[in-house]
Amino acid sequence: MADVTGPLEKLTDMFRRLDGVGRKTAQRLAFCVLNFTDTEAEEFADAILSVKRDLMLCECCQNISSEKICPVCSSETRNKSLICVVEDPRAVIAIENTGHYTGTYHVLHGAISPMKGVSPDQLKIRELLARLNSSEVSEVILATNPTVEGEATAMYLSKLISPLGIKVSRIANGVPIGGDLEYADEVTLRRAIEGRYEI
Amino acid sequence: MADVTGPLEKLTDMFRRLDGVGRKTAQRLAFCVLNFTDTEAEEFADAILSVKRDLMLCECCQNISSEKICPVCSSETRNKSLICVVEDPRAVIAIENTGHYTGTYHVLHGAISPMKGVSPDQLKIRELLARLNSSEVSEVILATNPTVEGEATAMYLSKLISPLGIKVSRIANGVPIGGDLEYADEVTLRRAIEGRYEI
Repeated sequence: MADVTGPLEKLTDMFRRLDGVGRKTAQRLAFCVLNFTDTEAEEFADAILSVKRDLMLCECCQNISSEKICPVCSSETRNKSLICVVEDPRAVIAIENTGHYTGTYHVLHGAISPMKGVSPDQLKIRELLARLNSSEVSEVILATNPTVEGEATAMYLSKLISPLGIKVSRIANGVPIGGDLEYADEVTLRRAIEGRYEI
Repeated sequence: MADVTGPLEKLTDMFRRLDGVGRKTAQRLAFCVLNFTDTEAEEFADAILSVKRDLMLCECCQNISSEKICPVCSSETRNKSLICVVEDPRAVIAIENTGHYTGTYHVLHGAISPMKGVSPDQLKIRELLARLNSSEVSEVILATNPTVEGEATAMYLSKLISPLGIKVSRIANGVPIGGDLEYADEVTLRRAIEGRYEI
């Protein structure tokens, strides 16, 4: 079938390079593209090239941005003395979607992981410290993921930032809203009980 | 966030147009592309344009092909008197992967579905009848999917082809190899019993 499906196989191969896409899914997606109109296919190809061409990292918060300074960092209404540290740009989108956070961000682009060979100097920690030194920051919220790597990174950063006299906080752990206690894991439940608040 | 992620949102939107890709998955895939190298991104964009540019339908079997007549139809070793009728090119790949079928194919590009507004004249049935009239065909295997639409299409074709004096067969239904009888649905199990063979 090599001859029949050369271009399709190539596209299937490209889809397989995306995280979490297996052989069958990649093939299905490639066939979807085959059913696209010519215009759609061109739009798709353009969109791929555009994310590589038109996006850069914000010089301040290191989030992906189409400008040198991202809209959050350049906004006059955001609280510059509050920095929420996250692992990746997706976390920024998630927090922005809550519509309740008015501070700024700092994107580390990963978490410390000896297993995956990610050391602190491969993350945007130097840039974070530079920000803390150059501007008035009153609180740093550590919003790295509640995983082993995320917790280790939060611990590492807290030890680094606390001596600077800046308040350091960590996002709360607990049972997710809409979740069922029966299905919460032991660690989450323990944290939920430890973190209980008076009503 | 519109400004920050313009190109990313555009790419997310393109991924969402693929079957079975929701908002979260589309966003995840778009971020994967962001981590591609420039070369990979160009390869990906090229691959998308290539499937639209370089592929056509084989004039004989209507399968997708990079040539006017696909390698299966132009092969001298394939049994031209045997035609396996399938709904789409993916079924051809699946059957080719078994490595046991030596006949040719005919791709309908869909199945009759009054619900989805697909009538027989929107499928490649005219082309199939033309093939049956112009060449010596001894058997047509109806390998449309074992769904309501696929069965209806098979029934329709069988009524159309039988009067031509050509043998018409349907692929067998039964429990899949490696499957568990406990989890087989009633219809499949009934068909498996009806279709039992002596050993």
